[in-house]
Amino acid sequence: MRLRKLKNSTSIINNSKYIILNPSEYKGKWNKVFNNNNPIYIEVGMGKGKFILENALKYPNINFIGIEKYDSAISRAIKKIDEYDLDNLRIIRVDACELSNIFNKEIDIMYLNFSDPWPKDRHEKRRLTNEYFLKIYDNIFKKEKVIIQKTDNRKLFEYSVSSLSKYGYIIDYISLDLHKECVDNITTEYEEKFMNSGPIYKAIYKK
Amino acid sequence: MRLRKLKNSTSIINNSKYIILNPSEYKGKWNKVFNNNNPIYIEVGMGKGKFILENALKYPNINFIGIEKYDSAISRAIKKIDEYDLDNLRIIRVDACELSNIFNKEIDIMYLNFSDPWPKDRHEKRRLTNEYFLKIYDNIFKKEKVIIQKTDNRKLFEYSVSSLSKYGYIIDYISLDLHKECVDNITTEYEEKFMNSGPIYKAIYKK
Repeated sequence: MRLRKLKNSTSIINNSKYIILNPSEYKGKWNKVFNNNNPIYIEVGMGKGKFILENALKYPNINFIGIEKYDSAISRAIKKIDEYDLDNLRIIRVDACELSNIFNKEIDIMYLNFSDPWPKDRHEKRRLTNEYFLKIYDNIFKKEKVIIQKTDNRKLFEYSVSSLSKYGYIIDYISLDLHKECVDNITTEYEEKFMNSGPIYKAIYKK
Repeated sequence: MRLRKLKNSTSIINNSKYIILNPSEYKGKWNKVFNNNNPIYIEVGMGKGKFILENALKYPNINFIGIEKYDSAISRAIKKIDEYDLDNLRIIRVDACELSNIFNKEIDIMYLNFSDPWPKDRHEKRRLTNEYFLKIYDNIFKKEKVIIQKTDNRKLFEYSVSSLSKYGYIIDYISLDLHKECVDNITTEYEEKFMNSGPIYKAIYKK
């Protein structure tokens, strides 16, 4: 979901302690950013940041990086996150196609939450679970590749399950109605809004 | 779904031209039963036979074998099928665990339609997509293994996608609401009855 731009978004972003403005400089050394060797989990397309913030608060021994390309979303996320003093959270503003310039074999888990479904066939390559992106992700994972996806978009989910399976991922876990399961689930803003309009799908892919 | 037994079911079954009463005798030579080398598709758990009969009528150049363990279902299927004169259809009465005694590298496609979900954890091994059965199926396929599953049972479908994926199958196609798709779909009796109560799931698995 694209958002209206906040008036002072540039200043909000540039003045936050959470933003890393030159992320490619830390390629291969993100453990130095966090000053520890804890696992690193990233969320690609963090939107307004509820999911990554609540994860960072709940799991202090895991480092989280929220990734987003739209200033309108980042500035809103940062406004919220700036209220907390967290050592295990950073935000970067890049497009997902840049990820292999930012990370080198240092990510443990990647979250794809409610990604843009790009429903038109001619936009297939823009879906974050298209082979084009899967190739990029190959370079960023530490060892085992783990992608955790949630979406309410049936066509995107069908596409993703098949695309990742064909690329060599196994479907380690799948739920076709997540909110009917008795499982821990940190929601996103989007999920809160749409979880009563139909099923939320979730899968854990491993390679 | 278990059915009431028809009064004269044994006589209906034994007198049909479609039934093969001693199927293990044809292991490795089912092409001789059909007198041609056309592909062979099987349906494990054919129930009352609507799906396999309509397939046989629609695709005369494919040989179909309906497999069912319950006399109550077989006798009903045969009553229906006996009205037609088909060379490309046979029925056998065995349990799925016997399949590798019946076929030897000669099946092209296997259908699993609305299989018993065996929802209790302690019955997991009875599900037709459990590893125990997947090992048996390995021996029956000609070359590429192709399993096509339909079900309305969400938990069975989640279980199956993950089970087959972990066993090495790729999910070549998946639909999470088959009846919303514009695709050819021959329904089963069960499907006709329950397709308006919730989504029908379908997957094509290949190995």
